[in-house]
This record gives sequence, structure tokens and C-alpha cells, in this order.
Amino acid sequence: MASVVIAADLGGTNLRSAAVNESGEILYRTNAPTPRPGTPAAVADLIGRLAEDCRANAGAEAASFGIAVPAILEASCGHIFISPNLPLLNGSCFGDLIAARTGLKISVENDANAAAIGEHWLGASRGTANSLCVTLGTGVGGGLILEGQLYRGSIGTAGEIGHICVEKDGLPCGCGSRGCLEQYASATAIARMARERGVSLPEGSSGSAAVYEAAKAGNADAADVFRIAAEYLGLALAGLVNVLNPEAIVIGGGAAAAWDLFSGPLTAELESRAFGPPTEGLRVVRAMLGDDAGLLGAARIALDGGGR
Amino acid sequence: MASVVIAADLGGTNLRSAAVNESGEILYRTNAPTPRPGTPAAVADLIGRLAEDCRANAGAEAASFGIAVPAILEASCGHIFISPNLPLLNGSCFGDLIAARTGLKISVENDANAAAIGEHWLGASRGTANSLCVTLGTGVGGGLILEGQLYRGSIGTAGEIGHICVEKDGLPCGCGSRGCLEQYASATAIARMARERGVSLPEGSSGSAAVYEAAKAGNADAADVFRIAAEYLGLALAGLVNVLNPEAIVIGGGAAAAWDLFSGPLTAELESRAFGPPTEGLRVVRAMLGDDAGLLGAARIALDGGGR
Repeated sequence: MASVVIAADLGGTNLRSAAVNESGEILYRTNAPTPRPGTPAAVADLIGRLAEDCRANAGAEAASFGIAVPAILEASCGHIFISPNLPLLNGSCFGDLIAARTGLKISVENDANAAAIGEHWLGASRGTANSLCVTLGTGVGGGLILEGQLYRGSIGTAGEIGHICVEKDGLPCGCGSRGCLEQYASATAIARMARERGVSLPEGSSGSAAVYEAAKAGNADAADVFRIAAEYLGLALAGLVNVLNPEAIVIGGGAAAAWDLFSGPLTAELESRAFGPPTEGLRVVRAMLGDDAGLLGAARIALDGGGR
Repeated sequence: MASVVIAADLGGTNLRSAAVNESGEILYRTNAPTPRPGTPAAVADLIGRLAEDCRANAGAEAASFGIAVPAILEASCGHIFISPNLPLLNGSCFGDLIAARTGLKISVENDANAAAIGEHWLGASRGTANSLCVTLGTGVGGGLILEGQLYRGSIGTAGEIGHICVEKDGLPCGCGSRGCLEQYASATAIARMARERGVSLPEGSSGSAAVYEAAKAGNADAADVFRIAAEYLGLALAGLVNVLNPEAIVIGGGAAAAWDLFSGPLTAELESRAFGPPTEGLRVVRAMLGDDAGLLGAARIALDGGGR
């Protein structure tokens, strides 16, 4: 009988859950708004309810549950160190809460790490040994697949590509440092830089979609913002090419939708900075799984028997 | 019978060779100036002669030979891509030349990678799963030990920590990029920055030793140069702590001799920039094996049966 697991991807705005089989097929899916303001217990309760819905509709028994969360955490026990975009989770033993609520075998993983696993399993980095996955969304997330495995580091916090410094005396970052890549290449940063250049965006628009629309409609300032963001990303990725020599770098998240404006200056900056030999065989590619990368990566972790 | 191997560490100035046993004891050692100008064949010939000397004096049969070289290379075959500090090696099939000359089983490795292996085997990072080794010499070299193994990347060029960008529009670097860490934290850069600040150094002095002497004698400009270099190093290492979450960072090379001036500002900059949780358990320590790190690392690779 085919293995089926439950997966969830918890975002700052939405919670998505699915039943997934060992081929990566989504058998059933559901979603709900993330409760905000809320408590870790309230979020765990909602995750539990969506998981029950998925189990009831999976068409097979599912005993393992993988959850992607927007946080740096101790993956072995699901303790949340910091969740910049969902601070209500900070310090919680989130894995334990969900285990108590559901009775399932739980794995909790950073959402960008889960996306890297998803893209490696079914997407743009399939078949590579060493790859990086970068997600340009509200923040800039990252995940490393090294020697075919997610690389978590000593306590599970590895992969935070968004907090590489690209401007020594640059803008303060939510992480406590300054000049982080996230301040220059996230979708949020793209919207900010566009406003700074006088690009008129719809009230309350915080992502890069409206900037992309303006650029496509001929606004040169809007197009220029994508070039600048891509050059900062190229600078950071060149360092990672020199240090990690990956075969593929996968770029996802909302800002990657502007791939036609992004990929040229990104590649040019990367090639002007990184060593030649590791750059020659490198593929810099757009993510393939869209919003499902984290969900599918969480499913893969559950299938692999991660968690307790 | 204890295993004995031959090791060599080829530098831009000196070639050092030794017979080493499986406990890491150096049974015999010898050295000679690196032939410059020279050819790959002439260097291979000298390496062969020193290896014969070591074999004759090892007191045991040695059939494997590990060689550390100042180059990025394809470790599986010993093909040299680029050797910035010994360009006569560029493009040579150096492993094949030495194999033909000696008849031994050859492993060729980047010298900073070999130093990382040496420090992990017998030195400052012993017992850790994930560590970085940074060598502040003529350039800035780096090596990564991840999950207990040297991480080489897809084609063997990983670990080039010295070519992380720390100044977006900074000084041109020999690698073709600009603003690389190597331009601000190598021993060469420390001497240059001291001269720029009017510190009087002996004619022809290119390392950091004379700058350290001046600082110890009370020259505030000389001391300030170590602070500046340490802050740049801290900026780059903070990014690597966020991305790789190592347990230990080992700092070696000539400039590390100024540890009393270096470690304070390095740690302060790193802690001000890196995420808290991966920084809490991190040890930033001085290398323990001095000039022997690369030689002992090359021996370890030969003992492990690397090479062909």
C-alpha cells in the first residue's frame, strides 16, 4: 500500500495543509487564515483541525505529519527559537503542542528548508547533489541541499541566506544586523525601493507584484528596482558559489515571478564575481513548485520518517 | 604494523614534506625552496625527490602520498584550475605528473582544505561535526568540515571563504571580483592598510608580523588595522554562521599571531551580526597546528585512501 502523509505549510497569513502520497501527489488539500493575534496553542489547534480534515479525505491511513514553519528552530524537537514573521511562535515547543493535539508523528522544519527539499524531490533541483534554494518573499529564505541531504547545521538553524551582509553599513534588519540581503532583495524590499524611487503603488501593497506590473507597463524606475535587487542577490550568491560550489541555485517566492527582469542582471553580477570553474557548470533556475514547495518538502520529511 | 604515509605542503615560497604515521606523528621532515620561475614538471620533480627522502627515512613502507597545493583544483584527478599564488601550476594535471614521478598513490588537495582536515584531526576543531577553518596568510583560505567530512562541493572548489564580498564597491581582487574579504583581512592586506595609514614597515615586508610589532610597541594606527581587518572578517563569518551554523571557527595563518588584537573585535562584530541561537554555542578559536596543519591534513587524506 502506498504511504500517505499529512503536510502543512504555516505562513504569516495562511495555513495550508494536504494529504500527500509517496509520489508527491496531493490527494486532498485545504487551507485557513493563520489566527492573528493568536497563541501557539490556537495555531496548533487549527493545524490539528486541518490535519484531521486531510486524514479523513486522504483515502488511506496517514500517521506522520510534516509541518513547515516560518521560523528558525531546533528541528529535532520542534522548539521555535525565533519567528520574525509570526512572532507569536517565539520560544514555543511547537512540535510538542501539535503532537499532543493530533497524536501523529510530527516533524517540524523551517519553511525555506522545506521548500529546498520540495524542489530537490520534485522540482528544479531534482537529480543534483548540491543545491541552494532561495525564496524571495516577505523575507529572503534559504535552504541548502548538500550531498543529497538537507544541511541543517549544528543546532538546525543553517540556510539563512537572507542574512548575509551585502551592504556593510546598510539598512537595519529585523535580525539585529544591518545591510542584510533581505533588506535589498525580498519582495518587501522591492516594494520599498520602488516607493523610494517614486513609483506609485496601490495603498497597502507590500509585495513585488505591483512593482512588476509597473515595470511591464514601461516604468523605468520600477524595472530598475528589479535590476538592483538582482545585483544584490548576485553578490550574495557569488560568495555562496565560492564557498559551497553547488550545481544548482533555485530561486522562488513572489519576486521570482519577475524572472524576465531578474535573471539577466543576477547572472551577470554572479558571473562577474564568482570563480570561473564552479560557475561554468552552475544552473541558476526558477523554482518549479510555486506555493507548494514547502508543503511538498514537509511531506517528504514526514515520508522519510523525520520527527519523533 | 602502523600505517605510514608521505605528505607534502607546497607553498608559494617553500615546499615541505614529511613521513607521518596514523597517530599524526611526524617521523621525518624535510623542505626546500619552491622552484620559481619553474614548470609543473620541475615542481613535481622536487616534490618527488623530497618524497623519496621521506620514504627512505620513514622507518616503514609508505605507498600513499598526500599533497596540499595553493590552488583550486579538481580533487579527484589533481587537475589545477587556478593557483593565484603559484600561477606556474595553472591548468596542469599536477596529480598525474607526481604519480608518474613517484609511483605512489597520489591525493592532491587545496591547502586550506588540507589545513581544515589537519585541525579537525589533531587540532582546534577536533571532535566537532561542523567547522570552518580560515587561514589569514598571503591570501585568505578556507575549508569546510561538514558532518565530519571535508566538504568539497560539486567539482571540488568549495571553501573559498576569502572571496566572499565584504565591500560591494571595494578593491579589485586577483580573483576578478572586487571587495573580497582577502583584500581586507589577509596578512598582505594588513600590511597594505598599515602603510596606507602611514605605519613605517621594513622595506619588502609583506606580511602582518611587522605591523603586529608596531602595534605592540604602541603604534595606534597599527593596532587599528587589526581591528579593521577583524571587523571585516567578523562580517563575513557572521554570514557563514547564519548559512552553515558551525560549532567551531578556527582561525590560522600569519595574521592569527596577532590574536590578542584580533579576537575581541572579531567576536564583537560577529555577535552583532549573526543570529543569536547559532552564535551561542559557537567557539571561535585560534588554530593549533601552525604551519603543520596543511601537511598533517594532506597526510590524513592519504591515510584515508584518497587519491588514485
